[in-house]
Amino acid sequence: MTDEPDIEWECDRVGYAYTTRGRTIGESDILLHAGQTGDQYALHMDAEIARQSRYGQRIAHGTLTLSIALGLKFDTDQSKGVRISYGYDSVRYRKPVFIGDTISVKVEVTRSQMDEKRPGLRRIVETMDVVNQHGESVLFLEHILVRWV
Amino acid sequence: MTDEPDIEWECDRVGYAYTTRGRTIGESDILLHAGQTGDQYALHMDAEIARQSRYGQRIAHGTLTLSIALGLKFDTDQSKGVRISYGYDSVRYRKPVFIGDTISVKVEVTRSQMDEKRPGLRRIVETMDVVNQHGESVLFLEHILVRWV
Amino acid sequence: MTDEPDIEWECDRVGYAYTTRGRTIGESDILLHAGQTGDQYALHMDAEIARQSRYGQRIAHGTLTLSIALGLKFDTDQSKGVRISYGYDSVRYRKPVFIGDTISVKVEVTRSQMDEKRPGLRRIVETMDVVNQHGESVLFLEHILVRWV
Amino acid sequence: MTDEPDIEWECDRVGYAYTTRGRTIGESDILLHAGQTGDQYALHMDAEIARQSRYGQRIAHGTLTLSIALGLKFDTDQSKGVRISYGYDSVRYRKPVFIGDTISVKVEVTRSQMDEKRPGLRRIVETMDVVNQHGESVLFLEHILVRWV
Amino acid sequence: MTDEPDIEWECDRVGYAYTTRGRTIGESDILLHAGQTGDQYALHMDAEIARQSRYGQRIAHGTLTLSIALGLKFDTDQSKGVRISYGYDSVRYRKPVFIGDTISVKVEVTRSQMDEKRPGLRRIVETMDVVNQHGESVLFLEHILVRWV
Amino acid sequence: MTDEPDIEWECDRVGYAYTTRGRTIGESDILLHAGQTGDQYALHMDAEIARQSRYGQRIAHGTLTLSIALGLKFDTDQSKGVRISYGYDSVRYRKPVFIGDTISVKVEVTRSQMDEKRPGLRRIVETMDVVNQHGESVLFLEHILVRWV
Repeated sequence: MTDEPDIEWECDRVGYAYTTRGRTIGESDILLHAGQTGDQYALHMDAEIARQSRYGQRIAHGTLTLSIALGLKFDTDQSKGVRISYGYDSVRYRKPVFIGDTISVKVEVTRSQMDEKRPGLRRIVETMDVVNQHGESVLFLEHILVRWV
Repeated sequence: MTDEPDIEWECDRVGYAYTTRGRTIGESDILLHAGQTGDQYALHMDAEIARQSRYGQRIAHGTLTLSIALGLKFDTDQSKGVRISYGYDSVRYRKPVFIGDTISVKVEVTRSQMDEKRPGLRRIVETMDVVNQHGESVLFLEHILVRWV
Repeated sequence: MTDEPDIEWECDRVGYAYTTRGRTIGESDILLHAGQTGDQYALHMDAEIARQSRYGQRIAHGTLTLSIALGLKFDTDQSKGVRISYGYDSVRYRKPVFIGDTISVKVEVTRSQMDEKRPGLRRIVETMDVVNQHGESVLFLEHILVRWV
Repeated sequence: MTDEPDIEWECDRVGYAYTTRGRTIGESDILLHAGQTGDQYALHMDAEIARQSRYGQRIAHGTLTLSIALGLKFDTDQSKGVRISYGYDSVRYRKPVFIGDTISVKVEVTRSQMDEKRPGLRRIVETMDVVNQHGESVLFLEHILVRWV
Repeated sequence: MTDEPDIEWECDRVGYAYTTRGRTIGESDILLHAGQTGDQYALHMDAEIARQSRYGQRIAHGTLTLSIALGLKFDTDQSKGVRISYGYDSVRYRKPVFIGDTISVKVEVTRSQMDEKRPGLRRIVETMDVVNQHGESVLFLEHILVRWV
Repeated sequence: MTDEPDIEWECDRVGYAYTTRGRTIGESDILLHAGQTGDQYALHMDAEIARQSRYGQRIAHGTLTLSIALGLKFDTDQSKGVRISYGYDSVRYRKPVFIGDTISVKVEVTRSQMDEKRPGLRRIVETMDVVNQHGESVLFLEHILVRWV
């Protein structure tokens, strides 16, 4: 703990929660992401093989879902440009995301405290639960944000 | 542990290590990723504000670096299509990635064992250290892969 | 009026009219345009919300329709590179454009005269009526072109 | 005028004004927009010809500047999803936008009243002045928004 | 012939053959390729005209199929970065490629010999037969590779 | 030969020649083409390795140059939509194309005759010489077009 005056923002407070807007995943999202990352694995790029797989169709890259989830979160974040991403813990892919699925993110602050080692730095942990249009969780992660007070 | 016959692949073995090919990040990568994710934060999109920031220039989105790092890794992975991403732990952004930087990934298997709860499932953990052209680490993560034996 | 010799081109003459080629709007057009402009409003990006709206489905951004309409017009313009866009008047969105719609533009010169204040400058006004595959007008505008004689 | 109760929002009030965030235009923006619209005119696509033109370099499409300006405006609009674009008047291109320029938009409400013909419809006119990093106006327009009260 | 020691690689040997992975062509592939190349011909861009044509629907650009075929080939090539494309002979478009088609390439080495005029240069010719998901040949070409021994 | 009346168009006549407009190749062209085709070879994607290569910098994919050359050609072709590409012969890559290069195409009809086996089919061969801004030939090919008379 430090003795700097620390104003805890509403969005830093444990229990602060909201759901982001939704975003429908298009085929072109998968093609562009495959192109940018170079991950052209058959389940993303080959409709014939994907049809015969246990998924029955092409699936989105995990990193595409993760990237859009973080984008949705930052687009809603009231502290834009003041708190920054430090990293993520416990990123877990739970269900596939298909072309045409609409995902949104349930965000909730679960920890928020001053960093013991770095005075003046507040560390906030949000759980991010990415859900599809059926309310199923497709991806979960803990998002660590930091803010200088 | 289970008593199923488990063939440990070379790329499953603790200590297995390699470095991926390199990938130069272009301005268009940042613009496309900002567009896809909706994260249009000033440090990515506004060269004037970025010039006055402590970075001195625009920086890549964390999720762009992460996505390309995973893509580079899968493009080199000899087990393509058999082992799948289960998730990530300890994802930590260490340094900014700038337009024109070339990143590659140092991969090393650090854990590999049969899942105690799910017989027949091997769980492999790789550390991924994303480095720029100066050899500096820009992103670190633990990548969890699973494989049915 | 000026006393410079002014050759009135065919495409400058009041009454000159033609219809451009057609262009089918894809889902990827909307996603790319949303990305480039940052306008990620639900009616463009969230198929679930769009389904429940009075449109029943996602709609194209007005600026996407406008941009493609101008592109179609310039791709057909016989004076390419000599006349330039000065601006638009009376831009009116009349009907939504949906994924899969094919738009074309009916162009007609309605005014054409020398600029009274700037000798040597001809000012041409074209009406542009953007229509979909059902012949419905989706966007109307007056396009002001200028040409040095 | 109607006798419906009309709550005039802050952002509907004449005099309400703000400046949007900035957006740096990249070469890839021009290439993508040229591709999407089909307008591949030399001043956008041919660096050699552009170098010899009076601009000295390639310029952005007018519709690209206009589209990004509207996107910047909607990304800042507090009434997102309630007020919609009806059209534009007096769109005037004032100066070229070059690769690397950063544009932002000065928005000001100049008219706001109930529609005389359509009871329950409020019509708001904003002037949008798009400026580059030197504070020069590159594009001006009047943006007409409507809202059901 | 030269008297340099020439190690003939497996992939240089006449008769060496394999089939690449598959790639499903999306509508966005056609739109992006039309944009990049400027070829906005109606059979690629106008679903209404394409519907009335002998194809009954939009078709991919020949150069899109050719580019993806070469990409699929190089992504599988074991000599990546050592052998380079010298050119192609007998490129023949055989059947249209439609949105949703999945193409792969049957590659076979048909000639391989030292260049008589340029000592130290091996010249390899592969036939590339691009096939769709029905096993129909859509494009054939002879791909000439060179390698310094 | 057939006895159908065959109108030889101007653009079918041996000796008919023109040069297309120019097109500057951007870094984003290479990144998008690498993404679409999956060809992420180091000379296109890794500025560090490319710097140390005999080229000294990244180079465009051969198929990107070829695709844009054909697009430039079709954008200028007066017979748009009537003559179609049958294939190419003698495609030869002559010099690398770098980021920032501006290419255009010198087209000349070298053969034009009725197909002996297929009555009513005219076969036209054009040489296409793709040149950069220094007038150097970077790619040569023979383009075979067909037209039903």
